[in-house]
Amino acid sequence: MIKIILDCYGGDHCPEACVDGAIEALAAIPDLYLILSGDETDLRKQLEGKQYDAARLEILHAPQVIGCDERPTDVIRMKRDSSMIKAIRLLRDDDSVAAMVSTGSSGALVAAALTRIGRLPGVIRPAFCPILPTINGGLVSVCDSGANLECTPEHLRQFAIMASLYMENVYGVQKPRVALLNVGKEAEKGDEMRQTAYKLLSETAELNFVGNMESRDLLSGNYDVVVCDGFAGNVLLKATEGTAMELLIKLKKDIYSSWVYKLGAAIMAKMFKAEKDFFNYQNYGGSVLLGTSKVVIKGHGSSRKEAVVKCLEQAWRIQSSELNAKTEAVICKYEHYEL
Amino acid sequence: MIKIILDCYGGDHCPEACVDGAIEALAAIPDLYLILSGDETDLRKQLEGKQYDAARLEILHAPQVIGCDERPTDVIRMKRDSSMIKAIRLLRDDDSVAAMVSTGSSGALVAAALTRIGRLPGVIRPAFCPILPTINGGLVSVCDSGANLECTPEHLRQFAIMASLYMENVYGVQKPRVALLNVGKEAEKGDEMRQTAYKLLSETAELNFVGNMESRDLLSGNYDVVVCDGFAGNVLLKATEGTAMELLIKLKKDIYSSWVYKLGAAIMAKMFKAEKDFFNYQNYGGSVLLGTSKVVIKGHGSSRKEAVVKCLEQAWRIQSSELNAKTEAVICKYEHYEL
Repeated sequence: MIKIILDCYGGDHCPEACVDGAIEALAAIPDLYLILSGDETDLRKQLEGKQYDAARLEILHAPQVIGCDERPTDVIRMKRDSSMIKAIRLLRDDDSVAAMVSTGSSGALVAAALTRIGRLPGVIRPAFCPILPTINGGLVSVCDSGANLECTPEHLRQFAIMASLYMENVYGVQKPRVALLNVGKEAEKGDEMRQTAYKLLSETAELNFVGNMESRDLLSGNYDVVVCDGFAGNVLLKATEGTAMELLIKLKKDIYSSWVYKLGAAIMAKMFKAEKDFFNYQNYGGSVLLGTSKVVIKGHGSSRKEAVVKCLEQAWRIQSSELNAKTEAVICKYEHYEL
Repeated sequence: MIKIILDCYGGDHCPEACVDGAIEALAAIPDLYLILSGDETDLRKQLEGKQYDAARLEILHAPQVIGCDERPTDVIRMKRDSSMIKAIRLLRDDDSVAAMVSTGSSGALVAAALTRIGRLPGVIRPAFCPILPTINGGLVSVCDSGANLECTPEHLRQFAIMASLYMENVYGVQKPRVALLNVGKEAEKGDEMRQTAYKLLSETAELNFVGNMESRDLLSGNYDVVVCDGFAGNVLLKATEGTAMELLIKLKKDIYSSWVYKLGAAIMAKMFKAEKDFFNYQNYGGSVLLGTSKVVIKGHGSSRKEAVVKCLEQAWRIQSSELNAKTEAVICKYEHYEL
């Protein structure tokens, strides 16, 4: 049985999306055991009349909720009874609980995970690693996408190692192609940090480093792992996601401007729906925080039921793959490089 | 008469795109005078049999060409007879020449402009400022997009001032809304540099600072100027451009997968063509290097004739608007903040 704790508050569609997602995940995964964190009365009401295996679901009563604009450091100190902080504490204290999923505040989650859960031995900085679909049907991961705004070359090397092992063990990608996000493809491009990182990545035997990548090529399918500082990664991820959504909105608006286009679009309705689903990153799970000693996944704040199911499946797969033990074994080899 | 020098070599479609673009721009702008820089024999051959006002066109013989992967510092020292370096020297030495356009290597152009042309008084770092279309039919500029990979808050404030004046004087945007690229909207988001920049931008009376912007909102139409360090700006720009192109390529591929979709697309052919043109950033001119003492514009390396015309028109408009004098007047007010 794999025990996962789900923070049911903090996201836009909470707690409905989380409760319904939990029920669906329980039905899909026979050895999944879920703990729902949040206000017990409210959660019991949400569960009322619904079909699920009650022997594999329990509730952790946590009456407080964390808002998106609260300062992470305040939250940890002041909101000890919140669904997120109580979940984190249980994850720390109960050896039988393997993982946690939350759609709440990223900042609070990172701060709480770092101070309460801690890092894998050898890991300098845990990092967010979301997954995106590529144009040829594959997947690409971006690490870090926002947990560490300022990074050293050694941080980036660790991100590369952790994300490579993640892609290999959880998504079955053989010898993941690792690229460094940069302003040009040539080896000498970028600032000093990037140039040193390029050298360090090239020298790391465990990695299949293929060189620099420009942000325009993220979805090309030529890369499996892209490493960068959290600021650039955040810009990359949101620009990619945002542009795809804006373009689809523009297409829709333009289609509605003419009855001829509306006719054309009616014929193509199924395709447009598929494009929208393709570029909806919720369909690919959440951002795992790589490098913490237990599995922590941040789901999109706007996650609906389907996205919550994806996050729970993802947490289950990561735990089943024994990713953390494998990561620890490789990271420790390079620990002497720590800066 | 406004005299502009056009570097006719270095881009992917050179010299044809430049020569044809020059001829079209001369026809469109009566008070434009062009100097084409490049191999004279080759350029004469390109011009042969074509209709243009020979009294407003001359050639600056420069037999060498700069490759895209040459090191900028080597180029300045070693390729003194190249079309780019000779053009830069003429721009520096001849008071009657107002501006320069090049589709060659960005790195070489920045290095040559900084060392040969110099900065406007008070400007710490000239910065690239490309323009993108927004979803509601407006424009948004990104400054810096790659000339300065590492920046201080004061650099960002100057980028904001220069880009605001550019949008106002060249594109007629009243009180341009300036945003700081960041990982979240709240004032306290980002690293120390971003937090200090936020404060500095808020305090600058000349600016209409509207707060932080996340990269996903670049095309929303809610901003006129986005300021950022050149690394993040480069990631933002190329991710936005790249995603739009990848999505359109995917749409095309999916359309060709079914005859029904092909039928739908045939009805919508005009619309799809318009979308492609809309997201083709060549249609909006080049990146002006704001803050140099004479106007320098970098056209896209893949510029075709139409894009070259846009760059020449843009250079002409910037010079006509007396942007540099206006920028100097404002920048000098804040010079005492220089770090």
